[in-house]
Amino acid sequence: MTYCVAISVNSGIVFCSDSRTNAGVDKAYVYSKMFRFELGNERQFVVLSAGNLATSQATMHQMKKDIRLNAPISLNTVATLSDAADYLGEVSRAQMEKHDNTGPTFEASFLIGGQIYGSEHSVALVYPAGNHITTSPDTPYLQIGESKYGKPILDRIIDVDTSLETAALCALVSMDSTMRSNITVGPPIEVMFYHADSFLLQPHHRFEEDNEFLRGLKKAWDSRLKEAFNQLPGLSWTNSNNNLMLNK
Amino acid sequence: MTYCVAISVNSGIVFCSDSRTNAGVDKAYVYSKMFRFELGNERQFVVLSAGNLATSQATMHQMKKDIRLNAPISLNTVATLSDAADYLGEVSRAQMEKHDNTGPTFEASFLIGGQIYGSEHSVALVYPAGNHITTSPDTPYLQIGESKYGKPILDRIIDVDTSLETAALCALVSMDSTMRSNITVGPPIEVMFYHADSFLLQPHHRFEEDNEFLRGLKKAWDSRLKEAFNQLPGLSWTNSNNNLMLNK
Repeated sequence: MTYCVAISVNSGIVFCSDSRTNAGVDKAYVYSKMFRFELGNERQFVVLSAGNLATSQATMHQMKKDIRLNAPISLNTVATLSDAADYLGEVSRAQMEKHDNTGPTFEASFLIGGQIYGSEHSVALVYPAGNHITTSPDTPYLQIGESKYGKPILDRIIDVDTSLETAALCALVSMDSTMRSNITVGPPIEVMFYHADSFLLQPHHRFEEDNEFLRGLKKAWDSRLKEAFNQLPGLSWTNSNNNLMLNK
Repeated sequence: MTYCVAISVNSGIVFCSDSRTNAGVDKAYVYSKMFRFELGNERQFVVLSAGNLATSQATMHQMKKDIRLNAPISLNTVATLSDAADYLGEVSRAQMEKHDNTGPTFEASFLIGGQIYGSEHSVALVYPAGNHITTSPDTPYLQIGESKYGKPILDRIIDVDTSLETAALCALVSMDSTMRSNITVGPPIEVMFYHADSFLLQPHHRFEEDNEFLRGLKKAWDSRLKEAFNQLPGLSWTNSNNNLMLNK
């Protein structure tokens, strides 16, 4: 399993991914699911992948090859991020269909985010079918993989005005909730920042399982969350009609 | 969709369920998913249901009929909660198989909890296949339906020493997180308490959408959670090597 999230706020994009890959619980590997396409000062992309590892790898391989061989369509030629997502979807589908006779086994999904000069930065989620959706002011983040455990905190914290630092912290908290509930999502955790209009991917951060920062955050969030719960007004019953109520 | 959770702590059991049933988003109904079987001072059961509504209703109907007609096996005759879960599983499977030619469409799953005189109170999760698992000191709660959004808070708060009131508050917070992220889970929300060895189901609490208590809890949890997040040490980069770190 996998958990990846990309958050597109006014000041840029945060990408966050886990690195555990498994085909059955006794076939767990560590693979980065974050791929950089640094194509000069007019286009920068990051891709996050979930689903079948062979399909993901073949898709990344083909996309790099298309750039290297100056193919008519590649991340170097697409005009918009939406075109980039369409292209990624086509490559992914082609790779999947090479091997796919039996249904969803070879499916992969992707997040692609970045910026092309002349348009705003944004993120798209590319489905196994090759179609995609993009972030918007109302929906500034997109997830792939095991998305449910970590969604509530994103829904509460993130909007387009959130700072990149806060968005990154929220992505890591969301990742922590997911890792706690699904053992097939695991470290190393990777985080990447893109500052709007910089056309420069920031150095990428990789946190191993025993990383002090990650452990500190995990512990801090666990105790803050318990405190938050303990600070809720307690439950009690009104004497009169046995209704539940919150204590004042 | 549905979300139900039952928490079995040392002092008793809390049951919590939503009431939204849907077959497509334009066929949403309100149905209670909580069923009481109050069978005197030696056996008390509560059943929560998720999945196909016709199968759930037929199962409850048959179980009531078996009690009424003094069938050889019914909730009135089973020796243990595990036997009760086996029996529920058989009834459910038989109902499902009456109509089922096409796979998982008619599946339902159940939580059954309560106490039979001479044994401890506990909860079992009955799968569509008819088999079941029970709560244990390490796993004091079980969920059916849309379980993922509301799981992290249960994992952090609940253990067997948790009080019934705190368990109920946690179930409601878990329900709130689920409703926030999945619109097919919705009020009225029902809560039921069983105090260990009481052989008496407490009055049952039903919260409508506009219920003041529920709105108060929702608001309090939202602001506490945001506070908790805002109290986390901020992220920053160390100047030296561009590593991320938590501020002191």
